[in-house]
Amino acid sequence: MSQHGHYRMSDVGKTVTVQGFIQKSRNLGQLLFIDLRDRSGIIQLAFDADHPLKETAETLKHESVVSATGVIQERSSKNESLATGDIEVKIETLTIHSEAATPPMLIQDDTDALEETRLKYRFLDLRRPVIQHNLKVRHQIMQATRKFLNAQDFLEIETPILTRSTPEGARDYVVPSRLYADAFYALPQSPQIFKQLLMVGGLEKYYQIAKCFRDEDLRKDRQPEFTQIDIELAFTSEDAVTALAEDMIRAIFNAVGEPLHDEPFTRLTYQDAMERYGSDKPDARFGLTFASFKESIGTLPLDFLTDTPLHGFVVPKGNDALSRKDLDGFKGLFDSLNATFIYLKKAETYSGSLAKHLTPEVTQTLDAMMTAGDTLILAAGQDALVGLGRVRLKLRDQLDLVKDAAHRALIITDWPMFEYDADTARYYATHHPFTLPKGDLKTIEGPADQLNSHAYDIVIDGHEVGGGSLRIHQSQIQKAVFNHLGIDEATAEARFGFFLEALKYGVPPHGGIAFGLDRLTMILAHTDNIRDVIAFPKTSSAQDLMSEAPGPISDTQKKELGL
Amino acid sequence: MSQHGHYRMSDVGKTVTVQGFIQKSRNLGQLLFIDLRDRSGIIQLAFDADHPLKETAETLKHESVVSATGVIQERSSKNESLATGDIEVKIETLTIHSEAATPPMLIQDDTDALEETRLKYRFLDLRRPVIQHNLKVRHQIMQATRKFLNAQDFLEIETPILTRSTPEGARDYVVPSRLYADAFYALPQSPQIFKQLLMVGGLEKYYQIAKCFRDEDLRKDRQPEFTQIDIELAFTSEDAVTALAEDMIRAIFNAVGEPLHDEPFTRLTYQDAMERYGSDKPDARFGLTFASFKESIGTLPLDFLTDTPLHGFVVPKGNDALSRKDLDGFKGLFDSLNATFIYLKKAETYSGSLAKHLTPEVTQTLDAMMTAGDTLILAAGQDALVGLGRVRLKLRDQLDLVKDAAHRALIITDWPMFEYDADTARYYATHHPFTLPKGDLKTIEGPADQLNSHAYDIVIDGHEVGGGSLRIHQSQIQKAVFNHLGIDEATAEARFGFFLEALKYGVPPHGGIAFGLDRLTMILAHTDNIRDVIAFPKTSSAQDLMSEAPGPISDTQKKELGL
Repeated sequence: MSQHGHYRMSDVGKTVTVQGFIQKSRNLGQLLFIDLRDRSGIIQLAFDADHPLKETAETLKHESVVSATGVIQERSSKNESLATGDIEVKIETLTIHSEAATPPMLIQDDTDALEETRLKYRFLDLRRPVIQHNLKVRHQIMQATRKFLNAQDFLEIETPILTRSTPEGARDYVVPSRLYADAFYALPQSPQIFKQLLMVGGLEKYYQIAKCFRDEDLRKDRQPEFTQIDIELAFTSEDAVTALAEDMIRAIFNAVGEPLHDEPFTRLTYQDAMERYGSDKPDARFGLTFASFKESIGTLPLDFLTDTPLHGFVVPKGNDALSRKDLDGFKGLFDSLNATFIYLKKAETYSGSLAKHLTPEVTQTLDAMMTAGDTLILAAGQDALVGLGRVRLKLRDQLDLVKDAAHRALIITDWPMFEYDADTARYYATHHPFTLPKGDLKTIEGPADQLNSHAYDIVIDGHEVGGGSLRIHQSQIQKAVFNHLGIDEATAEARFGFFLEALKYGVPPHGGIAFGLDRLTMILAHTDNIRDVIAFPKTSSAQDLMSEAPGPISDTQKKELGL
Repeated sequence: MSQHGHYRMSDVGKTVTVQGFIQKSRNLGQLLFIDLRDRSGIIQLAFDADHPLKETAETLKHESVVSATGVIQERSSKNESLATGDIEVKIETLTIHSEAATPPMLIQDDTDALEETRLKYRFLDLRRPVIQHNLKVRHQIMQATRKFLNAQDFLEIETPILTRSTPEGARDYVVPSRLYADAFYALPQSPQIFKQLLMVGGLEKYYQIAKCFRDEDLRKDRQPEFTQIDIELAFTSEDAVTALAEDMIRAIFNAVGEPLHDEPFTRLTYQDAMERYGSDKPDARFGLTFASFKESIGTLPLDFLTDTPLHGFVVPKGNDALSRKDLDGFKGLFDSLNATFIYLKKAETYSGSLAKHLTPEVTQTLDAMMTAGDTLILAAGQDALVGLGRVRLKLRDQLDLVKDAAHRALIITDWPMFEYDADTARYYATHHPFTLPKGDLKTIEGPADQLNSHAYDIVIDGHEVGGGSLRIHQSQIQKAVFNHLGIDEATAEARFGFFLEALKYGVPPHGGIAFGLDRLTMILAHTDNIRDVIAFPKTSSAQDLMSEAPGPISDTQKKELGL
């Protein structure tokens, strides 16, 4: 591999061999210049007018592959936009490895190609420096992760891909067995059970950068297969796991060279996160945090303020920043939720639907927190916080509120153990049924809706990048949790009997965490498109447009599989 | 994690907390001793007669999990067979995390359990120190590999698991698509096409420790899913790839602390390997290499020596070492092949079926290579070399010929490009159809049976641990190879049209190599059982006895998948 993107003025006079793709040519009649691209960057090749290979070189289309040898010399006309722009290679010999047909897309960062074209010709799209950069960031994250964990005596252990269905809720991809009639392997949605069994097996500290699979209807940032940095350890605590996670994230950001706010990660309970940010994955890079207005505006004698929390936040200079249309938009958003939206603008006096109801006491409170020009955004009702959370993010983007380049990480703790689903009239595990609830056995056997868990999420810039929990390591607690979930003994046995069996033979207390590598890479590579951080991604309808997967298989194969 | 296996006399007086599984207890009435096991080893816990927890501790069954705090003290009665045998922890406090039921197998290296029991209770089998050691070796190999490749600017890049069938010959595992009728993903048999597309994509240096899948009828050392250290690079040569492989193997053996013969890896062509060792994966840790006897014994006027090669080797002191039964066994082996077995014993004179035909000239030649007591093993006929190769390995084991602890690596080059299959009357690619044949286009378009290829294998101690090749990067050569394989244009287009399309847009010359991680670990961990180097292996009939995979899926799921 040549590293020609690293050549500089200090290399002038050296004879070098460079190789790569022809980015473009400029034929000035007497002189021919070729921009040659490799993974390291672009360098200019210069052919003299009388060079015997000039005529051949002129015919080469861009994206053709060549090697060339020559001497590095200073350019007569320098190019400041190129790292190697002060120099060029004066060509002596040239080898043509492969002549290219005209490619169906431009090979440069700001390509004009549709994403469909880019995915169909992914082998060309991969040549774009921005994609190569993203893959390099992904590589750096993986290496920094392993370096960090290896130094702490973790073992990287592979768990199976051909396995049994795990009870994670989403749909499994399955693989029909040829040897056993009507039997299927399932691809893992996560290594959850296997990593817990490694703890049962006394491996103590495990990690894996693991492929996981979910046959879900895809959202923008999901892929049918995704990669998880998966960690589990024995004899640990919630503090120990989250401290490990914090140190690891810091090591990763350092390795990639991305700034991360250097205060210790802020810890917030799930409840506080909802009340202050209206989100379980708050973006803490800007303000607009919520306060309760129950004791001020909430005391006004208005029907819709009775028996409801009231939260809101002040938008400094909101009167100018927020148009009538913006406020109507917010109202629409809250209307679609189960919540009531109110705003108050402060100028010389207050305006807005509530203004005429303000008492002197309430006005005094508001005066203390608002200056002229500010807008107060308020919401009451069951989904008020969620709505405020969405408005907060809209304002982040609209008013460009993220000023600091440093990323901001939070740890969200004390998740509710269960979520109640009114449609099916039952409880579901917020994380998964192996999560350890907080409290003693008696508490855990008590009312489900009062149980919090030893679960924690790591949130960066408003994205959930990791999550984990302490696990149940005692059969009685596992039984109590199954009880709440309405899983009877026979069902439990059928679904994960071997795992319950494992709990009988001595189990260390254990816990762990998993990070989404795709999401982490997106944050560190500054992209919103998950397909830009995966070498060979699938579309949001689960297709590989390049290899045309999924596709047909032969009748013989179907017959062998009994399909 | 405690690291109590590392405590020594120098730690006496320290207060420590240890945690792990109870290996066993010795109750001496007055005193109670518990052996506590963690990943690092075993340490003795000592309870005084009057310790308030002694009675509780006495009731604990082995494999129960505890934490204990106490002071390290010198033992009164030392145990030389234990690394921590000079010391013990005098217990102050004890926490019982999990009480174990009596496990169905002994948790120690020389367990009495059947392999079926071990696999069903893999979470217990994993507690055995020998399995933990193997997984640690596997971990070390992975880390040494990455460290080596990272230092050379390789990027670790993940290729997809849900993909399209690749033409590797073996059967694919397939995954039915829920979204597309009668469509299937295939699990990759190797990342071959994707890694080549990464080279087309200009990534230049790629590696991945990749899961691969083959739905084969399993042999002893195969698993339905296996792991491959997969490497590809652009602008390279056969010498560069094999040198890289050699350096990497050396780095891996160093990291694990296993001795590897320090001479440069011996390079042998495929043909030389066959003629000298009767194997394409020779075990070079001992002699008994073959010579041709065509010019000596082969000149004797005997029918079965006409028009056939004649190879053989001298077994020093073979007359004593080889019984009549051994020689009969060899004869049976050659009879089952297409070959004729002969032997000659030298005592004062020569004996054996050929003895009476020996001429003075031939006798003189034999005298120069044999001393009294030696046996000459010879074979003629088409499969003679293969038969001799098997006899050579039998003798290795029977006569215990491997004396050197150092492992021995070879590089086998110049593989035939094609193999002819008489049954189907056609040629098959010895490696795969993307392997670059040696020679220019005209040669490559010439007779198939005369073509060698830029393919190479790495062989250690008689096992193939790695193999690779330079790849075809030019369409005309690819077409010539398809021609030899009887693949017409329409078939090529249907099977790997997207790959042929990729060859049109400028392709760097490239090549690579892949190593079997399972096999490498087996060699470095000194085991013949592939299931002892995989955390959660499958049986030779592709079952996971622990989780009972493959298993049934629900009717809903089948219906969604159109099965």
